[in-house]
Amino acid sequence: MIVLFSDFGLEGPYIGQMKAVLHAAAPGVPLIDLFSDAPVCDPKASAYLLAAYSSGFPEDCVFLSVVDPGVGGDRSPVVVRTADHWFVGPDNGLFEPLIRRSCASVSAWVIRWRPKKLSATFHGRDLFAPVAARIARDDFPHQGGNRDFEAVSPEVLRRQDWPDDLAEIVYIDQFGNAITGLRSSTLRRGQTLAVNGKTILLAKTFTSVAPGDMFCYENSNGLMEIAVNKGRGSDVVGIEVGAVVEIAEL
Amino acid sequence: MIVLFSDFGLEGPYIGQMKAVLHAAAPGVPLIDLFSDAPVCDPKASAYLLAAYSSGFPEDCVFLSVVDPGVGGDRSPVVVRTADHWFVGPDNGLFEPLIRRSCASVSAWVIRWRPKKLSATFHGRDLFAPVAARIARDDFPHQGGNRDFEAVSPEVLRRQDWPDDLAEIVYIDQFGNAITGLRSSTLRRGQTLAVNGKTILLAKTFTSVAPGDMFCYENSNGLMEIAVNKGRGSDVVGIEVGAVVEIAEL
Amino acid sequence: MIVLFSDFGLEGPYIGQMKAVLHAAAPGVPLIDLFSDAPVCDPKASAYLLAAYSSGFPEDCVFLSVVDPGVGGDRSPVVVRTADHWFVGPDNGLFEPLIRRSCASVSAWVIRWRPKKLSATFHGRDLFAPVAARIARDDFPHQGGNRDFEAVSPEVLRRQDWPDDLAEIVYIDQFGNAITGLRSSTLRRGQTLAVNGKTILLAKTFTSVAPGDMFCYENSNGLMEIAVNKGRGSDVVGIEVGAVVEIAEL
Repeated sequence: MIVLFSDFGLEGPYIGQMKAVLHAAAPGVPLIDLFSDAPVCDPKASAYLLAAYSSGFPEDCVFLSVVDPGVGGDRSPVVVRTADHWFVGPDNGLFEPLIRRSCASVSAWVIRWRPKKLSATFHGRDLFAPVAARIARDDFPHQGGNRDFEAVSPEVLRRQDWPDDLAEIVYIDQFGNAITGLRSSTLRRGQTLAVNGKTILLAKTFTSVAPGDMFCYENSNGLMEIAVNKGRGSDVVGIEVGAVVEIAEL
Repeated sequence: MIVLFSDFGLEGPYIGQMKAVLHAAAPGVPLIDLFSDAPVCDPKASAYLLAAYSSGFPEDCVFLSVVDPGVGGDRSPVVVRTADHWFVGPDNGLFEPLIRRSCASVSAWVIRWRPKKLSATFHGRDLFAPVAARIARDDFPHQGGNRDFEAVSPEVLRRQDWPDDLAEIVYIDQFGNAITGLRSSTLRRGQTLAVNGKTILLAKTFTSVAPGDMFCYENSNGLMEIAVNKGRGSDVVGIEVGAVVEIAEL
Repeated sequence: MIVLFSDFGLEGPYIGQMKAVLHAAAPGVPLIDLFSDAPVCDPKASAYLLAAYSSGFPEDCVFLSVVDPGVGGDRSPVVVRTADHWFVGPDNGLFEPLIRRSCASVSAWVIRWRPKKLSATFHGRDLFAPVAARIARDDFPHQGGNRDFEAVSPEVLRRQDWPDDLAEIVYIDQFGNAITGLRSSTLRRGQTLAVNGKTILLAKTFTSVAPGDMFCYENSNGLMEIAVNKGRGSDVVGIEVGAVVEIAEL
């Protein structure tokens, strides 16, 4: 299974062009759109989203992960292997929380392979998708490297100064629910979230609170999320992607 | 074939997460997105849309149908079998028009099975998708029930007070065309629609009327629809989803 | 591989309904969404987009191409075969740049076949999709015609008065990048684009210019495109689809 994670937008040609490359190079492998609207040109917020939402996918999935404002510049294209999954994308911090949180050993490669035709602005299609397809069809060095893929220490990909969890809104969904980059497991008993100095009710699900009430809860991927029952959490407090959240005592 | 009908939004992770579950549990079964933007948190409007748009699909399709504002509350998860198709989703009226209009006998089950890990807010992924996959791979009791699926009378799912057709706008499409919950077969000869007291021209297709003219017509799924040739029907009269329409004499 | 190109919108039921027909009639053939948001009801702008973005797809792909404001009127449904690909859609100019630019001989057919049930407003599902599926499963006359498909001279589909390239914005993507209908190969050395009398910097990629700078470049499909590094090109100059661009001397 190849899972697509990008800020390309589901509309427009980009996702389809990548899928055409994937279908041709790895026929029969299912393709899943996870996020096509990751935080635009924001590898940091995207990284915490990717780390949370890649969990739960079948083992050995390949995550084609492209949030890449530096395309055409000098950032390296890389492959990362965690205990469960493969990740292909740019070296701009997108895989930092995955590496940081991985209990098992992580492997990493810098992609030295280049396609015959490499556009300046669409490495997702021209470079990352062919590599994802090679991994999916098991044409990739599991140990060590080769001419196309240089094995490197995962440490060279690290962003040591980034936090373990990101205390920001990283995504607002169709319902206006605002997802943070904070895992619920980072909150101690008796703690909740606050936004703009306002402490938010902690609850379990929508039907636990009255219509119109704002609350926060552990979402279905383990992240803290802010919502309003029968309303839009993002409207009520004017939350946008990038807004800071705080941990508060109940 | 498994057909997805929800208000989750095509963007964001939810559809992809459900598809990953479906691919893993029912490999090779085609997955079709019908509506990802059904009327948000509105099972009633969604129900009339689903009834109209499920027609025409191949026999034995499984409709994974999730418009579920009560997720995590006490509404039951159910399976409904009509003459042609399977439907999996919450018992909140979403299948009322399908049951009501079905000439052949309808069968129904309450889902007693629970996954090992059931999130409080995403039963589409954790509960409904695995059940849809079981039906698609023919691992489901066609007659009677079992420990996982309790056969019930379809009558217990009924919303007797709902109308046969819904005289409201239930969807506005990309072109600004406003789809009603009224089947064209409910209009007698000499009848048309009216909105805000304004009677609307009845026509056959876009090229039947002058540019800028508003008209209504039987859409490609048998519902009455309001449009403007080379314009946006929804803009002209400020129609929104939920707006009431009336049947008027020509 | 069947590639979908339309102005239907990815949301809503239309793409899914076409895919259900394609899956049923051509099982196992991969379906790719290229554009679901081609310029709405604008076959001319769509035609230049389609010509540029169909390049690079595998040989013998079938492009189901539906931008069809005249649906239900008297425009003909047609099939066009270029050196590389098949195209199915309405005869409204949508294939003009493809025919015009084709070096090899082009073949064309008028579709005389009609389905048993043909809606007045959704030929994409009822007529074009079944024909695309027939081509994909090789049930189509490669030479000459038959009762269902009348071979015609491609000249009858021509729009002789259309330009070789379209000096307009034909698409604005998720990032606010504005794609023109001008192939970069039509610019001579020392030429660039201008919009509203303002000459635009020519560059190679985003990292070549300072944040906030507007520039134009050859995009990954060979079209001239206008962008702002770390900004939205479409916002800065208020460009919309249909806006005229000019070729200017550097």
